[in-house]
Amino acid sequence: MKLNSKNLSDHVDTLYDAIVVGGGMGGLSAAIYLARYGLKCLIVEKGRGRSVWMQDLRNYVGLDPNTKGSAVINHGTKQAVDWGADHLRGFVEEVIDEGETLAVRVKVGKKDSVYPVFRSKYLIAASGVIDVLPELEDMQNVYDYAGYTLHVCMICDGFDMWDQRAVLIAGTEGQINAAFVLNWFTPYITVLTHGLVQVSDEMKQKLADHGYPLYENKIVRFLGENHQLSGVELDDGTVIDATTGLVNMGSIYHNRYLKGIQGLEWEGENLVTHGLAQTSHERIFALGDLKQGLNQVSIAVADGTMAATQIWRNIRRASPPRKWEENLKQTPVALS
Amino acid sequence: MKLNSKNLSDHVDTLYDAIVVGGGMGGLSAAIYLARYGLKCLIVEKGRGRSVWMQDLRNYVGLDPNTKGSAVINHGTKQAVDWGADHLRGFVEEVIDEGETLAVRVKVGKKDSVYPVFRSKYLIAASGVIDVLPELEDMQNVYDYAGYTLHVCMICDGFDMWDQRAVLIAGTEGQINAAFVLNWFTPYITVLTHGLVQVSDEMKQKLADHGYPLYENKIVRFLGENHQLSGVELDDGTVIDATTGLVNMGSIYHNRYLKGIQGLEWEGENLVTHGLAQTSHERIFALGDLKQGLNQVSIAVADGTMAATQIWRNIRRASPPRKWEENLKQTPVALS
Repeated sequence: MKLNSKNLSDHVDTLYDAIVVGGGMGGLSAAIYLARYGLKCLIVEKGRGRSVWMQDLRNYVGLDPNTKGSAVINHGTKQAVDWGADHLRGFVEEVIDEGETLAVRVKVGKKDSVYPVFRSKYLIAASGVIDVLPELEDMQNVYDYAGYTLHVCMICDGFDMWDQRAVLIAGTEGQINAAFVLNWFTPYITVLTHGLVQVSDEMKQKLADHGYPLYENKIVRFLGENHQLSGVELDDGTVIDATTGLVNMGSIYHNRYLKGIQGLEWEGENLVTHGLAQTSHERIFALGDLKQGLNQVSIAVADGTMAATQIWRNIRRASPPRKWEENLKQTPVALS
Repeated sequence: MKLNSKNLSDHVDTLYDAIVVGGGMGGLSAAIYLARYGLKCLIVEKGRGRSVWMQDLRNYVGLDPNTKGSAVINHGTKQAVDWGADHLRGFVEEVIDEGETLAVRVKVGKKDSVYPVFRSKYLIAASGVIDVLPELEDMQNVYDYAGYTLHVCMICDGFDMWDQRAVLIAGTEGQINAAFVLNWFTPYITVLTHGLVQVSDEMKQKLADHGYPLYENKIVRFLGENHQLSGVELDDGTVIDATTGLVNMGSIYHNRYLKGIQGLEWEGENLVTHGLAQTSHERIFALGDLKQGLNQVSIAVADGTMAATQIWRNIRRASPPRKWEENLKQTPVALS
């Protein structure tokens, strides 16, 4: 059921089989499987995740390519709740490893917040990442294009940039290297650093050798209309023609609540997983963008399937078998 | 485009980047990604795969739980072809490793068959498995229930068997062990061997200890109406009451065309994979049910994403970079 500030006190005494941090594509997949394994689970979703930015989901089998991420999230949330999962809008502040259980402290409500603590046998970290966007004075101007013609995922949207004039917006020298992958889709690349990078001479030479102009000035605004980019204006008045763009400025990882847990293996900000989405902590699983691997919806959804299945196996194997009691009182017919 | 016996001769000279054997969930995911990476791919689909038997797809985020597998296949096929994949109805008879290329011989047409050979740099084995069903005189009687209330996948459908009287149909003693997992969902299990198993005394005792009756006679017919099982009739006239069932008689692997390839590592009939759905053969990838792991739609779809992405990386890295030629003729503005 949907929990909220009115009814959540009824649920803090529940020992959940699993708490799923993040109600995006991976978390919902995990919750649907957990619920259909008959396990008690709680999804805690902070809202405004990466999938909500997706204006179209081009490459997920079964959905129309113009399906919005938010539509899938709403649909999947309803499905998970219908199968029996609990769902709470809130922000996970901290997880404490209590040995047999994990205690999950959630901030609920922006005003007059309350801080309930829920407990579970397992935790599924599905809180993902959010893409860094260039900071402009008018952020609405960025949001008007981000997810439409200004992309954040080359694998997802490179095809839609084919042979167009594109800007690549990078926040570090390493991120500029995306130009030499993006050129699979289009060679008409202009690199913008938004004033954030001291570009080395080697990189400048490499870009020049490929014919890709570099502009190191700050971006003032994106130009265009109806979410269709036509150019980018810089603070020296330069206007770059571009009908599409890729923002490659890194990601913010929603993983702070895990930083106090002992025994978790990290690779940078990504959790290292093995087998069925298991981290190095036997009660914690990690999905999708938060773990190593491709940041794709299909991968997160499969990770959710795997994590839920392994948790079901663990709990099932630790449970006594259900016998058919009435048959135990009589001599089984077929065994005579 | 859709290929058929009329237009396929125009395509046998194409060197595909990848040929995808099997147009099920995994194969379609691979093809959609390949096409959106701008790679030339051909899907060869024999028809009547496992997903076509699915009457409802309960646990795939984004789709209504009553979505039929065949609807997803039709939708995904159209999507792959729209993005630029070729699609051929045919049966892959043999694959020959020619070193830099793989030659794929396809049987097209049941009558007056033709046997075109297509070539590709990479092969994606996505031909899956098909579940063994009990052989009855009237197979239509089996098909009336299989995929509806007579299930073949406990992970997919165990929830829908909850606390119901269920038959477990097994073809070997090992397959009877599914009873001790199925009892998570229901303890009211009757085991049927359809005359195929010499059940050991130990297994008989174990079943008796759980209260699960065992019947070793042959099944004559499934009873019920409108795809809703009500019981099973055996050849000695016994009728077992049951409103649901699980067939656990193993799978037939569609992998014969790979058996002549050197250097492929197998575990039983499953291909061993690592990394992004790669087999031990650098040009062959394996997806979904054909490889080790969970046989779930979400897993196959993610495998398709991974295989296509690795193939794109391989091909991209072996290709010369696309430069912005017109800029190479002038001094780049921003580098002065």
